[in-house]
Amino acid sequence: MTRRDLPTYTLGELAGLLGARLVGDADRRVSGLATLKEAGPDQVAFLANRAYLKDLPETRAAAVLLHPQHGEACPAARLELDNPYLGYAALSRLLDPLVGREPAGVHASAVVDPSVNLGERVEVGANAVIEAGAALGDDVIVGSGSVVGADAVIGEGSRLHANVTVCHGVVIGERAILHSGCVIGGDGFGFAHDGARWHKIAQLGGVVLGNDVEVGSCSSIDRGALGDTLIGDDVKIDSQVQIAHNVQIGDHSALAGCVGIAGSTKVGRHCMLGGGVGLSGHLTICDGVQVTGMSLVTNSITEPGVYSSGTGAMKNVQWRKNAVRFKQLDDIAKRLSRLEKERDG
Amino acid sequence: MTRRDLPTYTLGELAGLLGARLVGDADRRVSGLATLKEAGPDQVAFLANRAYLKDLPETRAAAVLLHPQHGEACPAARLELDNPYLGYAALSRLLDPLVGREPAGVHASAVVDPSVNLGERVEVGANAVIEAGAALGDDVIVGSGSVVGADAVIGEGSRLHANVTVCHGVVIGERAILHSGCVIGGDGFGFAHDGARWHKIAQLGGVVLGNDVEVGSCSSIDRGALGDTLIGDDVKIDSQVQIAHNVQIGDHSALAGCVGIAGSTKVGRHCMLGGGVGLSGHLTICDGVQVTGMSLVTNSITEPGVYSSGTGAMKNVQWRKNAVRFKQLDDIAKRLSRLEKERDG
Amino acid sequence: MTRRDLPTYTLGELAGLLGARLVGDADRRVSGLATLKEAGPDQVAFLANRAYLKDLPETRAAAVLLHPQHGEACPAARLELDNPYLGYAALSRLLDPLVGREPAGVHASAVVDPSVNLGERVEVGANAVIEAGAALGDDVIVGSGSVVGADAVIGEGSRLHANVTVCHGVVIGERAILHSGCVIGGDGFGFAHDGARWHKIAQLGGVVLGNDVEVGSCSSIDRGALGDTLIGDDVKIDSQVQIAHNVQIGDHSALAGCVGIAGSTKVGRHCMLGGGVGLSGHLTICDGVQVTGMSLVTNSITEPGVYSSGTGAMKNVQWRKNAVRFKQLDDIAKRLSRLEKERDG
Repeated sequence: MTRRDLPTYTLGELAGLLGARLVGDADRRVSGLATLKEAGPDQVAFLANRAYLKDLPETRAAAVLLHPQHGEACPAARLELDNPYLGYAALSRLLDPLVGREPAGVHASAVVDPSVNLGERVEVGANAVIEAGAALGDDVIVGSGSVVGADAVIGEGSRLHANVTVCHGVVIGERAILHSGCVIGGDGFGFAHDGARWHKIAQLGGVVLGNDVEVGSCSSIDRGALGDTLIGDDVKIDSQVQIAHNVQIGDHSALAGCVGIAGSTKVGRHCMLGGGVGLSGHLTICDGVQVTGMSLVTNSITEPGVYSSGTGAMKNVQWRKNAVRFKQLDDIAKRLSRLEKERDG
Repeated sequence: MTRRDLPTYTLGELAGLLGARLVGDADRRVSGLATLKEAGPDQVAFLANRAYLKDLPETRAAAVLLHPQHGEACPAARLELDNPYLGYAALSRLLDPLVGREPAGVHASAVVDPSVNLGERVEVGANAVIEAGAALGDDVIVGSGSVVGADAVIGEGSRLHANVTVCHGVVIGERAILHSGCVIGGDGFGFAHDGARWHKIAQLGGVVLGNDVEVGSCSSIDRGALGDTLIGDDVKIDSQVQIAHNVQIGDHSALAGCVGIAGSTKVGRHCMLGGGVGLSGHLTICDGVQVTGMSLVTNSITEPGVYSSGTGAMKNVQWRKNAVRFKQLDDIAKRLSRLEKERDG
Repeated sequence: MTRRDLPTYTLGELAGLLGARLVGDADRRVSGLATLKEAGPDQVAFLANRAYLKDLPETRAAAVLLHPQHGEACPAARLELDNPYLGYAALSRLLDPLVGREPAGVHASAVVDPSVNLGERVEVGANAVIEAGAALGDDVIVGSGSVVGADAVIGEGSRLHANVTVCHGVVIGERAILHSGCVIGGDGFGFAHDGARWHKIAQLGGVVLGNDVEVGSCSSIDRGALGDTLIGDDVKIDSQVQIAHNVQIGDHSALAGCVGIAGSTKVGRHCMLGGGVGLSGHLTICDGVQVTGMSLVTNSITEPGVYSSGTGAMKNVQWRKNAVRFKQLDDIAKRLSRLEKERDG
């Protein structure tokens, strides 16, 4: 599974698989992917951003994936495509050493309850645990040390990397990728206070992930209090993200690292939340909203667009002065208004 | 453990268990809990917030948990209680499929060191590990894949979900709930710098959790450098929280998701920290402090109340202008003072 | 592994091991380390910060580690050193119950692929998994439940605590310490958008950690898209940190809890990032930069020094007013300029 084991293709095969027009030797065999600058003579490079056009003439790559408009400038064989970035994505998957391996079956050390419903070609890694009543679709891979809780459902073609936890009753769609350390279906944070102490509210809901969802390392998606926490299709969630109970995320949205979403908030479709963004609870964020990194959203958003909060870093010496003034800001504004009134007499 | 396995009760039984006054058929059997809007005819709903009063007349629930003042408006059987939200919490626990199961004992694949002291009715899940010298009180449940380190102590009735890590020597009180992926007792972040490089300070302290503590998925509580990191009774900690070495959290405090507390800070009793709040190190936060989401606290707080920092999200176009002005804020304040002086001239 | 098992030394032995000048009884046996205030008569205390000088006269410690200038004021035996804080660090390691144990070998329940290359004195804990092609150097310790992926390399003397995940092909240097729940080598967050949906970019790079790196509980370091994510020598990473794909961290830098670094950003040598700091992607941060807690850095930094952003917490009542004014800040600045112009007429 190291780079030395990368699959190899001829350029002709690649052109066919990528739907690209090949200009060059169809029989040349390549075995890897790299940037224009770093590609070696057995690798394919790609040009998907004009900023790297300067690296094209000097590339040592065996072939370059690019838009036809840059074909002439290419010193090597070329694979022409209208969208070379999508082509790069497709090529990267062809070269992924994790894909296309023969499934290894259920490891002898794995504990799979007899009541579990296992699809075809399922792989369960060493010391993984599949609890009673769970169902794993065809071609599911469960990594070493992962735990699938009772009655959980994992859709066809999904992969749990090592040490993933899918809690009881959680439903994962097809082709999900769950990275190590993530936890799907831990309890939501619900307590009633009696004036003196907390009383737990059992979290009776579940979590439902749509198809083609990816969840990063060490991220957590909590189960609902009553209804389910719902993650739509094609939602991409980075590492260290926290999604609280009864949150809903619309299809095709993407959440960068360290995002935190409080309970019952609904995020629309095609939204993008930057790293470290925080959404308060019980909000509704409409479709097509982008929030820049580390912004705090405390009100619902009803109009698509880009939203931000906070202030960027500056030298600490200056920041200290400005941060002090922030505490006087209301006073400053009032004093300014007074001056204006005096001027206006 | 799925919703199909939810325990069932008659309304008469529920009234007795909840200490509620039943108006309706005591023999009617119910098997679930839902909102007024979503409850089906075999479920109980609850009204704990006037905002949902509008849903009461149309509810299809078998019975509604509510305050006596709303009894007349209820179209179904009712369970009257002075504090229906506490009643909801109690009912949710009665319906929790994880509670009241027969303990399954120590799974054959679990590794329990012969020196471990196991209480009565302890359950240890598949591929869990209990290291030498640990002690687990009566009715402790250790989920699949969890690891309890050497000499750790887990109090009666505590539950570790799957893939939890309790490190060596950590002491967990009674009735704790530790969610998947959390780590109690990893090293605090302590290094001495010699001018060129770092030298590790071994973290010789431990972590002590009081009774009735809950820790969310993927949260971490680091062990002390010398003394212990101390978490009081009835402290509730959400997911993705980081508590550094030698922090102390007073009884009954609650920390929402993604909170980070730096080393040696003391948080009082009955405090509430919103999602993503950060506390600097070596602070003292008095009892009864609330900090709103994503605020940064860099000074001790000596007065109970609500504290905040930061700014809320706005459209990026406007934010850019304001954020630039923030960097000029000290200058703006000085220019304003000058104008005022000239006026007062 | 509890405090009762702490190693013991005579003061004479300690003086030799620490390179300290002993004034006192070389044969006195001590077995622990504590603050001046809390040390008992069998423990060593230390004075490394003048703030604690007041505790020196009353200490009950058997001996005190201190600078010679404070020797006269010490009521107990003393171990004099030019840098007592470094001395404390060294002493803490001598007293670490985790160090110096006999390695326990490979536990019977661990799954070690026959192709794995195991060094001398390697310890693999219960239910840990070492996948095909991995190589573990001499004196490596892999904690219970940890998973080392295929073809990963773990350098001599490194320790993985319980439930750590090192993904396929990751390279860990010598003397690393990886705390529970951390994940090294999960996929970076890379997708190409076709206008309607996301297409995964397989993350074909790896992660390379230098020597003497420490990674805290529940932290994640993602593998590179093409090249590797690179962590230099002696880099110290606290808990709950997220490092995205293709980030580079220079030697001797330290990242406090909850830091998040977006893709391809390069952090220099000897940098210090405070808790919760966020760095945007594709930045370059030069050597010797410090960023204070919860600051957001969206631009490259080319000058060493201390940087900050955000505003500290204040009472919510005042904060609300100031936060509203922040949204008017550009307007306030313009109105002020107008007044100045009018004055200057």
